[in-house]
Amino acid sequence: MNNVKTLKKFISISFKISPSYFFLLIFQSMLGTGQILVNVILPKFLVDELVGGRNRDNLIRFGLYIVLSNVVFLFLNKTMKRIMDVRNIYMKEKLNQAMADKIMKVEFACLEDPYYLDLKERAVFACRTMSALENLIGSVAKVLNNTVTILSLLAVMFTLSPVFVLLLLLTISISIIAQKIFSKYQLGCYQELIPINRRYGYYVGVCYEGKYQKDIRLYNMNQMLTDRILYYNRKIYEWAKVFNKKNGAFQGFIGIINDLQAAIAYGYVGIRVLSDKLGGRIGIGSFTMYVSAAINFTTAATDLGRNIMAVIQMLGYLQPFMEFMSLPDEAKREGSVPFEGEVESLRFENVTFHYPKSEQLVLKGISFEIKKGEKISIVGLNGAGKSTIVKLLCRLYKPASGTIYINGRDIYEYEFTSYMKCLAAVFQDYKLFAFSVYENIKGGEEEEEKGEHRERVASLLEQVGLKDKIEELKSGMDTLFGKQYDPDGIEMSGGQSQKVAIARALYKEASLIILDEPTSALDPLAEAEIYEHFNQLVGDKTAIYISHRMSSSVFCDKILVLDGGLITDFDSHKKLMEREEGMYYKLFKSQAVNYQI
Amino acid sequence: MNNVKTLKKFISISFKISPSYFFLLIFQSMLGTGQILVNVILPKFLVDELVGGRNRDNLIRFGLYIVLSNVVFLFLNKTMKRIMDVRNIYMKEKLNQAMADKIMKVEFACLEDPYYLDLKERAVFACRTMSALENLIGSVAKVLNNTVTILSLLAVMFTLSPVFVLLLLLTISISIIAQKIFSKYQLGCYQELIPINRRYGYYVGVCYEGKYQKDIRLYNMNQMLTDRILYYNRKIYEWAKVFNKKNGAFQGFIGIINDLQAAIAYGYVGIRVLSDKLGGRIGIGSFTMYVSAAINFTTAATDLGRNIMAVIQMLGYLQPFMEFMSLPDEAKREGSVPFEGEVESLRFENVTFHYPKSEQLVLKGISFEIKKGEKISIVGLNGAGKSTIVKLLCRLYKPASGTIYINGRDIYEYEFTSYMKCLAAVFQDYKLFAFSVYENIKGGEEEEEKGEHRERVASLLEQVGLKDKIEELKSGMDTLFGKQYDPDGIEMSGGQSQKVAIARALYKEASLIILDEPTSALDPLAEAEIYEHFNQLVGDKTAIYISHRMSSSVFCDKILVLDGGLITDFDSHKKLMEREEGMYYKLFKSQAVNYQI
Repeated sequence: MNNVKTLKKFISISFKISPSYFFLLIFQSMLGTGQILVNVILPKFLVDELVGGRNRDNLIRFGLYIVLSNVVFLFLNKTMKRIMDVRNIYMKEKLNQAMADKIMKVEFACLEDPYYLDLKERAVFACRTMSALENLIGSVAKVLNNTVTILSLLAVMFTLSPVFVLLLLLTISISIIAQKIFSKYQLGCYQELIPINRRYGYYVGVCYEGKYQKDIRLYNMNQMLTDRILYYNRKIYEWAKVFNKKNGAFQGFIGIINDLQAAIAYGYVGIRVLSDKLGGRIGIGSFTMYVSAAINFTTAATDLGRNIMAVIQMLGYLQPFMEFMSLPDEAKREGSVPFEGEVESLRFENVTFHYPKSEQLVLKGISFEIKKGEKISIVGLNGAGKSTIVKLLCRLYKPASGTIYINGRDIYEYEFTSYMKCLAAVFQDYKLFAFSVYENIKGGEEEEEKGEHRERVASLLEQVGLKDKIEELKSGMDTLFGKQYDPDGIEMSGGQSQKVAIARALYKEASLIILDEPTSALDPLAEAEIYEHFNQLVGDKTAIYISHRMSSSVFCDKILVLDGGLITDFDSHKKLMEREEGMYYKLFKSQAVNYQI
Repeated sequence: MNNVKTLKKFISISFKISPSYFFLLIFQSMLGTGQILVNVILPKFLVDELVGGRNRDNLIRFGLYIVLSNVVFLFLNKTMKRIMDVRNIYMKEKLNQAMADKIMKVEFACLEDPYYLDLKERAVFACRTMSALENLIGSVAKVLNNTVTILSLLAVMFTLSPVFVLLLLLTISISIIAQKIFSKYQLGCYQELIPINRRYGYYVGVCYEGKYQKDIRLYNMNQMLTDRILYYNRKIYEWAKVFNKKNGAFQGFIGIINDLQAAIAYGYVGIRVLSDKLGGRIGIGSFTMYVSAAINFTTAATDLGRNIMAVIQMLGYLQPFMEFMSLPDEAKREGSVPFEGEVESLRFENVTFHYPKSEQLVLKGISFEIKKGEKISIVGLNGAGKSTIVKLLCRLYKPASGTIYINGRDIYEYEFTSYMKCLAAVFQDYKLFAFSVYENIKGGEEEEEKGEHRERVASLLEQVGLKDKIEELKSGMDTLFGKQYDPDGIEMSGGQSQKVAIARALYKEASLIILDEPTSALDPLAEAEIYEHFNQLVGDKTAIYISHRMSSSVFCDKILVLDGGLITDFDSHKKLMEREEGMYYKLFKSQAVNYQI
């Protein structure tokens, strides 16, 4: 995406958020120019009067005009600034929100693919750290302002002499060309800095983060981290030295051009005051006006150059943002058949899968079928592809080839939202949110009769063994999860959180339930309790368990044994235990041997 | 800590980092003032000549003086800016690094205590997001600059009339008082905004974070999160509207004062040009000079007010930083006896513990003794206090009462660094770093013969079962951990990472090894393999295991059974299994029942 396209897309996104914002921006630019014009033109009359007639009334009148018009512009400018400050906050947060929204809706695969992950990181960096959105809006507004100012001052100076204007334009062209060359160099420099900065940021971030501190202390990582930070520190410092040297030279050159412009302005206008060689003589008042116009003109021109560069720089930062915003949404991607009823059958047909940008097949053409109400356990070594099956079922990833059928239809034919309602999962790395316990469990289900929801949540809390814990809280299930934002919030241990996550999955009235290591943080009694309740809770729903605790397979109707992306067995515990050369027997035995009483 | 103290402390920290920086700052301030003075005083002569003699040589001379002095100042200013830009980066990063260093060295208990955690968060926020360090330095420099400018312009204006100066000082006093009142109001407003902003930041952050996305999609949290963001959005917007209204009124008032100052300047100086009622008549040149001096003076005075407010604001942000920097270091806290030799005995004597700010006792006076070479397993329900024992041993927390003895001496009598060498731990939530695999395992151990280290790391990688995985990498054990900063980096599964963490703990030649759920992410075979190797690797070292997998207790010499912060049993597996009413039997049985073949 090139800069012009990015700018267009940015403006169209912003315009959709608030069209009035743009008219306000334009009006604000005109105001700025108005004030400059008043202060360029009005003093001419005052000075003429001072040098000439010195008529007290006239002097007072002109003085008053200057003061009054400045007061009016001051008032208008301040009012506009006030309005725009609030509007800018609004725009910035709407754009932030658009980004947040996009991340939540984008195809999930994008969020685990290093390329898109990097894109997302850079987009978030642009939004949050660089405030690129605000800065871009601000810079575009300034470019607008500068342009209007330049055009009107050109008009003023044109009344003196077109040659004068041409001379000034010439010097400005030189400085613009110089700026363009330099900004290309600058961009290159910044590109070099990015990877250094990211690494520096990572190591500083590790030092800042609480969760790394135990290992830092125990393994004496302090010095290693400091060394790494110092190393990148030095790199940044060296980069800055080189860059600032070049930058200094460039700024010096621009300074000379600026001085040249001033010299031309003073010189040409001075000559016009002193002699009539270049045209009719002008008065001191006009001298003041034209010099002031020329000075303001060069300032505006320099500003314009700088602001255009800022726009380009911000567009560079925002490019990942724009690219990310253009990614396809998950829900919209495909499927239009609404999912209705329950999961009656589930079938994998010759499904292969590899992660994006990787060639290694995680699943090598697997086929199996699960019927309604069956409890299936998936077992296998680390990396055998167990969690991948879950991700495919949840439509977080799409198979590379082969098809997954539910109720006889490819799952990608179902409309996304209704499909997601048919299944519930507790992932290994499940997350809870800083909502109340009640809201965490209820999730985004529509609000019906509140009482009914609450009753169901209460009954689930009892079933997962959290009833007492929740009841002793002042606000019960309305207590916020986490103490971060509410001193009355509840901090839960890993085991307790896991129970809430299980309750959340059960709350969703899905007919297919998937549990990926759901009891890893629970003690033996809590684990036994959960399993006991599960069979009761899950009832006639279809369920898939994944666990390294082989004992959980005993409860299941059938066990799917995965080995290196292939299904080596799919049978009942009893049958599998009869085959002593099988993977399942080996796995089960390796744990069971220590449990013989 | 009040503002003056904070400022003093900040300046003393910064001065220690770079004394020359302060002289450069002062020089830069003087340069800024110099340029203003030249442009206030020199034009007087040019204008006088223009209005008076119009001697061409004089005109050219004065014009040249103005241009030349501006060129010199421009050059000096740009050079200084260039030097200072690089210096500022240096200062900022040194201060950042001081903060990172402090976090890594501060008493660990501070990092889990909500009060200090919040303090740390605010300090990090000030450093990273607000760039408070840079801004403070910048604002202090500007205050210095403004002060020097004001003083020299006062001197210029004093040559015209003390009354004139007094009049201007009066209006400035009014605006400073107004600014002070307003900034108090402003501070109150910002305080109100902080909790809103933090919550807004949290919810936006959740949407931005990859690890929340699976649950957001599956539990349809999208709308709930968006609603929450919109809610805080609206709150911020409303806040901004109210605040900007007040701010607008205040800015308007300041504007009027500014206009009053301008009117006084133009008016008084105008009268002095037109009549001799208030003193000797002055020429147009002097008029220009004094008006220009007065305008620059009021600008500098307004700037001074604003910059002082900025300093105060930044000091407010930096207060948590300063407070955090003043916390006691862990290593320095206590203990001076160097730890030598091996852990011969370990004894808890009547140890009680509660987490800071909590009154609930996690350990209620426990006593036990472990002898050299013993393998101990700690079992108990979630929340029984198992991990707390490990944290106390690692001196991450201090007992509330009672003493932990190693080799007969209170562990807090040992010098920190040498003590930390005697033990190695794999925590439940262990972390690896973006260093190479080799560096991760070696940790911060001193660099001796590199070859020797590498051999040991290679042998450990083999023992934990990662030899093949590492050997197939292009850079072997020098491969960076994680793909984030190096496309050739290695991404490891949970199980593989856990193996690296175990190798890291074994590398440290500690005589006491602690493993807190070290195999939770491993499949049954890998787990069995680790345990098998362990007994061989740990050898005659003392070892403490914590695991919900009861089977790991079978290998141990003795099992410490914790129940509600009390030790209910401390005996061998065989003895404990004989008592069917005991907690251990219950725990073991609940898992074993499903493993009977």
